[in-house]
Amino acid sequence: MPKTINGREVPKTINELKVKPFKGHGKTLAAGHKYGARLKNAPPRDGKLLGSIEEAIKRTGLKDGMTVSFHHHLRNGDYVINTVMQKIQSMGFKKIRVLPSALFPAQAPLIPLLKDGTIRGINGSMNGPLGAFTSEGGMKDTALLRSHSGRGRAIECGEEHINVAFLAASAADMYGNMNGVDGKSAFGPMSFAQADSRYADYTVCITDNLVPFPCVPHLISQELVDYVVPVESIGDPNLIVSGTTRMTRSPVRLLIAKYAAEVIERIAMKDGFAFQTGSGGISLACTKMLEEKMRKKGIVASFVLGGVTKYTVDMLHEGLTRCIFDGQAFDLAAVRSLRDDHGHIPSDVYQYNNPHTGGGIVHWLDACVLGATEIDIDFNVNVNTHSDGYLLHGIGGHQDAAADSALTIITVPLFRSRIPIIRDSVTTITTPGEVVDVIVTERGIAVNPKRDDVLAKLKRSKLPVMDIQELKKIAYDLCGKPEEPNVTEEVIAGIQWIDGTLIDVVYKVKGKK
Amino acid sequence: MPKTINGREVPKTINELKVKPFKGHGKTLAAGHKYGARLKNAPPRDGKLLGSIEEAIKRTGLKDGMTVSFHHHLRNGDYVINTVMQKIQSMGFKKIRVLPSALFPAQAPLIPLLKDGTIRGINGSMNGPLGAFTSEGGMKDTALLRSHSGRGRAIECGEEHINVAFLAASAADMYGNMNGVDGKSAFGPMSFAQADSRYADYTVCITDNLVPFPCVPHLISQELVDYVVPVESIGDPNLIVSGTTRMTRSPVRLLIAKYAAEVIERIAMKDGFAFQTGSGGISLACTKMLEEKMRKKGIVASFVLGGVTKYTVDMLHEGLTRCIFDGQAFDLAAVRSLRDDHGHIPSDVYQYNNPHTGGGIVHWLDACVLGATEIDIDFNVNVNTHSDGYLLHGIGGHQDAAADSALTIITVPLFRSRIPIIRDSVTTITTPGEVVDVIVTERGIAVNPKRDDVLAKLKRSKLPVMDIQELKKIAYDLCGKPEEPNVTEEVIAGIQWIDGTLIDVVYKVKGKK
Repeated sequence: MPKTINGREVPKTINELKVKPFKGHGKTLAAGHKYGARLKNAPPRDGKLLGSIEEAIKRTGLKDGMTVSFHHHLRNGDYVINTVMQKIQSMGFKKIRVLPSALFPAQAPLIPLLKDGTIRGINGSMNGPLGAFTSEGGMKDTALLRSHSGRGRAIECGEEHINVAFLAASAADMYGNMNGVDGKSAFGPMSFAQADSRYADYTVCITDNLVPFPCVPHLISQELVDYVVPVESIGDPNLIVSGTTRMTRSPVRLLIAKYAAEVIERIAMKDGFAFQTGSGGISLACTKMLEEKMRKKGIVASFVLGGVTKYTVDMLHEGLTRCIFDGQAFDLAAVRSLRDDHGHIPSDVYQYNNPHTGGGIVHWLDACVLGATEIDIDFNVNVNTHSDGYLLHGIGGHQDAAADSALTIITVPLFRSRIPIIRDSVTTITTPGEVVDVIVTERGIAVNPKRDDVLAKLKRSKLPVMDIQELKKIAYDLCGKPEEPNVTEEVIAGIQWIDGTLIDVVYKVKGKK
Repeated sequence: MPKTINGREVPKTINELKVKPFKGHGKTLAAGHKYGARLKNAPPRDGKLLGSIEEAIKRTGLKDGMTVSFHHHLRNGDYVINTVMQKIQSMGFKKIRVLPSALFPAQAPLIPLLKDGTIRGINGSMNGPLGAFTSEGGMKDTALLRSHSGRGRAIECGEEHINVAFLAASAADMYGNMNGVDGKSAFGPMSFAQADSRYADYTVCITDNLVPFPCVPHLISQELVDYVVPVESIGDPNLIVSGTTRMTRSPVRLLIAKYAAEVIERIAMKDGFAFQTGSGGISLACTKMLEEKMRKKGIVASFVLGGVTKYTVDMLHEGLTRCIFDGQAFDLAAVRSLRDDHGHIPSDVYQYNNPHTGGGIVHWLDACVLGATEIDIDFNVNVNTHSDGYLLHGIGGHQDAAADSALTIITVPLFRSRIPIIRDSVTTITTPGEVVDVIVTERGIAVNPKRDDVLAKLKRSKLPVMDIQELKKIAYDLCGKPEEPNVTEEVIAGIQWIDGTLIDVVYKVKGKK
């Protein structure tokens, strides 16, 4: 089997797709052309509105073996994915490929569809139960996981082809103009769905809020949409807020956040700088601390990027950032601000960081703060699997931001449940060490040796800078050397780098199925 | 030679392009796929900003025979087209094809470039001197004229391929995010340029207002842009206002406007209706009269579409329309409103009326008011040539709006300079009679016989409804039968219908060159 530049063995194909091993960031360049989407013929005014999802499925000509797609902006509150897939099941379709931007525990009801052959495979993030089920060998296909922008790239270049996209909208008119900011189920931008609407053979809008023509604003425009189906509810937007999007109160995590904010202050913070922080508790605390530092120094950011929370919105309202680029809303304050604030800009996965375009916004990030399930002494980061080998998380924007931010910081506690997070080798490489600059833990801060500029600056501070080997040693001394994951040699998922190469694989766990 | 459904002889090719004769609106359907644009590789932050237009031309790899494109949002005030083309000339390139969305008298300096072989052909509207020069046989290629959306369609399906697009922007950052609403040269939306930016091999932004990253709002996003060139001035926005965009004070034209407004009132006006009126003096007067009727009746339009003027903006501000879809700004009040007003939406040529998409906004027009240079007794409309055969005007949005508006009204004086406007046969068919519903002149109103519903309603009014033959007779009685245009059998331009078929050709005028 071919090996990646990091020494991981990866297959030459994932299902029918030929894949190449990861050669290093920026080493696999684009050639060729985008996929040319199907030309259409304009229907009359009343030619798009349908009475049911079943009718839409029929009109799109769905067949066994085809690929359907969904966005995940309603996150754990989404009703559309299960409803559509169960309808597809009841209509008797088999071997359907599902290409969601992400799935959450709310989509655990798809497990029976994987069992009965309705679904042959899912290429997309599977957070929680679906990931666990796949880890245990429950999926016929091998899964292929991509970052947000990597998914956009794969669709744009034709590596993935969508037959029918079913797109939840919180407001839409009967000709298909739609948004996610109006209506009882408002969920924010429609960033992930842009790829689907541009390249799917058929795009079906599913809405619980049919408004008079024209739906304004529209984040997806009518000419990309084939059918509109009104339903009673597309989901519960209160469940957009995941468990992770709450500020931490743990003293350990607050300390990590404090260190991370200080690293940014010393390395990246200046007037007009830009940053992305995640939605995890440490990231949110770090954002608040950065905000305080900026206020004191009179610094205004040029932009803040990412999943958006009320903390980001507060910065915009206070004038601490000129604007927000919003890939997804993580709470309802973000949804409202996207609707109302001029400087709050919906941003799609192509603008974010598809490497095979003229360049994403991430190239202008001066710092990003990201999480990990594991980190190794080569600075490789795992966000997909736990140390027991289970695939439980998606890639999200981790690779996208890490790849091209001027300063990539990973914040982690040194251990979780007495399992070291810093270790000799990560179970799965999601993001390669070559793009990771600083690891921040509660016990110490490790700097990637290739960033001697950063190391020199941090050494002049009182921050607890140490070698990553030292960090690992502390973790191992406290918790013991971690056990190897209990896995077989069977590959159940591939992990793609943003450029389309395979950076690692996930193996089936032992003793199940 | 093949004949169109209207009996016009058209060739089988225009230059190298195979073309089919027009078969009737909606009779030539799309098949196949969009053109897949070139994949790119993201450059670093400082990888796009160049010092000169010459450097940009070199970096794009321009070669003899290639195609370059421009938008016309600065209309008669544009400096970019001449500057770039003269640089291309001085660098010694030959046989360049130019694909502008439109050219104006300001671009007369391109005539020497047609003479010396720098330019082999122009496919796009040529208003004034360039049209006249082409009519006299001055262009090596046969020109091909398209409507706004027709140009978008041609680029989208690959019928036209752009090697390098040079896009004027009144604000841009060094990574290529750009708009037309900020800066000293603000000109409005960038509707025409959307096609170019999505499908050109290389997109070069030319701006006289380089702003810090990120340029917000951006109507074209960085990932579509290869290079950015700052220049001293992109044009004089005061010259956006063409001679036609002034309210008429002529009693004859005011009477035509009054009749047109009454026709709309009786046929189309109801709460939530939508309309498009042009920028000509009659259209502007008609808009004002409609506005008065709406105010009296408490009617609010769902949207107003088109080239936007201060009259449209006034309606938005007064709440007489829910929103404006803005394809181009015709004055500076429109530019300001686009920047500031939430309900003023930049709208591109795909959203407008490319027939080979999921459907343009024009399908939702309840009425449109358009002009003509000639109309014939079959309701065919000419907007391109004068009765002497000279090609002096582009198609603009005429076909786009006429094709699918529920009520298409053409307003014209019965004669101009003692030449009848209503005649047996138009010199050139731009828009076929089958999509034209009502002709309004100062002497009478003619209804297309296929619209007996409209005829019945208007006959119940005091409006001077009469047969189009009667109108023609009045015109001929007053002015005499018009002379045939003094043309040869040599085709100098093709006129495309929005679906890509050829609806007519323009012939070389006699006695020149």
